[in-house]
Amino acid sequence: MEINDDFYMKLAIDEAWKFQLLTYPNPAVGAVVLKNGTLLSIEAHKEAGLPHAEVNALKAAYLKVYPKSELQYLNDSFEIHKFLKNNHNDFFEDCEIFVTLEPCNHTGKTPACSELMEFLNLKRVVVGSIDPNSNATGGIERLRKAGIEVNTGICKQECEDLLYPFMKWLNGGFSFFKLATRLNGTITGGYISSKETLEYVHNIRSKLELLAISGNTVRTDRPTLDCRYVNKQAPNVLIYSNSSKDEFDKEIPLFNILNRSVIVSNDKNKIFNSKNVMIEGGYSLLEILKDDIDMLLLLVSPTLKNSNDSTIEYLIDEKYRILHQYYNGNESVIFLTRNI
Amino acid sequence: MEINDDFYMKLAIDEAWKFQLLTYPNPAVGAVVLKNGTLLSIEAHKEAGLPHAEVNALKAAYLKVYPKSELQYLNDSFEIHKFLKNNHNDFFEDCEIFVTLEPCNHTGKTPACSELMEFLNLKRVVVGSIDPNSNATGGIERLRKAGIEVNTGICKQECEDLLYPFMKWLNGGFSFFKLATRLNGTITGGYISSKETLEYVHNIRSKLELLAISGNTVRTDRPTLDCRYVNKQAPNVLIYSNSSKDEFDKEIPLFNILNRSVIVSNDKNKIFNSKNVMIEGGYSLLEILKDDIDMLLLLVSPTLKNSNDSTIEYLIDEKYRILHQYYNGNESVIFLTRNI
Repeated sequence: MEINDDFYMKLAIDEAWKFQLLTYPNPAVGAVVLKNGTLLSIEAHKEAGLPHAEVNALKAAYLKVYPKSELQYLNDSFEIHKFLKNNHNDFFEDCEIFVTLEPCNHTGKTPACSELMEFLNLKRVVVGSIDPNSNATGGIERLRKAGIEVNTGICKQECEDLLYPFMKWLNGGFSFFKLATRLNGTITGGYISSKETLEYVHNIRSKLELLAISGNTVRTDRPTLDCRYVNKQAPNVLIYSNSSKDEFDKEIPLFNILNRSVIVSNDKNKIFNSKNVMIEGGYSLLEILKDDIDMLLLLVSPTLKNSNDSTIEYLIDEKYRILHQYYNGNESVIFLTRNI
Repeated sequence: MEINDDFYMKLAIDEAWKFQLLTYPNPAVGAVVLKNGTLLSIEAHKEAGLPHAEVNALKAAYLKVYPKSELQYLNDSFEIHKFLKNNHNDFFEDCEIFVTLEPCNHTGKTPACSELMEFLNLKRVVVGSIDPNSNATGGIERLRKAGIEVNTGICKQECEDLLYPFMKWLNGGFSFFKLATRLNGTITGGYISSKETLEYVHNIRSKLELLAISGNTVRTDRPTLDCRYVNKQAPNVLIYSNSSKDEFDKEIPLFNILNRSVIVSNDKNKIFNSKNVMIEGGYSLLEILKDDIDMLLLLVSPTLKNSNDSTIEYLIDEKYRILHQYYNGNESVIFLTRNI
């Protein structure tokens, strides 16, 4: 295997995907720091409001060399920036940073990464995608003006794939269909997902603007659709159905969650006008919405089990492209987009 | 993410899995070289008779620093050993090597890795699994006696998972069931796998002692079961069937491959007494053999398509553990073992 810029950028990309969908409304971003050729850190942006990937990677790199530094206790972006500026002692002058997205040049919830990187006088900055956010752009220009070597376009396609949900968030809205399956494709007949996967789903739910589900699933599964495994606020729900709200049994748990709105509608636009919507369902709902969704999120349990749903008459015949895939614990997580 | 011994060992493990099943009768092994903390190479053993992972990694590390060295033209283990011994100039004295399996201490088709590593006077050797092959063992002892720091047991479980087929080869035999599916589990209704996946399967076939298949598949698919995509010798075939050989149409291509034997038998032992057997089939054959196979190899095409096989009445209900998973091109490769 070739150890080159692509290799290090790929480490940053893989790390960032672990937090895909969890950084909303921010992009998923990963960063890697090398000091004098030695890999010191691989980090990602984890959640809006928390430090950017570059800041996490610069912090981890410094702590790799000075593990007892008081920097270990700092979690706020402004504090980390301040500490690094005051204590770098030219630590970063022989450092290269690989970042999947152009460093921001804008002070918002967190201070501007490009300003910090200019101050620390990094040796080289390697960038995947150019920042499409006009608020934050200008990072590369700033660094180059400061005399820092900047290379762009490394792992271009993979960095664009990583940014795919964010680009949709910026340009109207992003929708993805979550399907929990077994290896043989069955989706009913008992519990499927592991505790780790359920926690992941509940974390994703907590970031949604809207969770959509079919009327049939509501009637059959009587779900709660909250975020109890991670103790976070449950999303608003749209039940995609021709029924009126009154026709649903109000004892179904999803109707009884504090600070959640539930609407029932057969209007697709109400789903797809949402900025960040997850649709949870089975093959029959996927068949209905397949032309409208941006991404398919497959959570695959390593089990084989026959069940009645394999006889459902759905007509689906779809080709996808794998955006990313990993396994954590004992289940597979596969991000797919339509192959068009 | 923590950058530590586990991290580098995992790089070696992931690389080795790309050649899993292709190194028969040798184990799949990966190796990583760092020089003064800088990652120089990630390599694997690719095929029996070709250089061991350590040799590939030491060679690639040297070439990373001296890319124009004539070493680039050497592919034979003995020649690479000789070149490195004569030209190392203490290059490796600040190098660490991570290797998933204890370096061999035995001159066979290739010279002993531990002897080379002793000669090159590496700074540190980090080992995953201890060599279970009594012919080759003693590598760690040799290195320690030479005063080289050796750490063992890094990523123990993952290195043992990587060695799983090899341990079975050593101890009687290894059998795995290959299943090519779509995301929704269907396996019939037209072509499934990509050209890259077919090449991979043909490479695997070329290493088999036996390829087993059901009589029904032979009658229905009329397969060739050769290695034409990689231009290698086709494996011997066992048709698992109650029929006699005479009852099969001899015009079926698989019967007409040069230097291949075909037997028809309903005796499971004839399959599982083989040292390295792949069973190619569908869910009904898997249901029959599920208690006998060591591993399930799933090749998943990122497509959804309904087909009649989803209505097949198979009773399977199995739990697996993911040994490894990756995607190459646009298909998933998943190695699973029964979760017991």
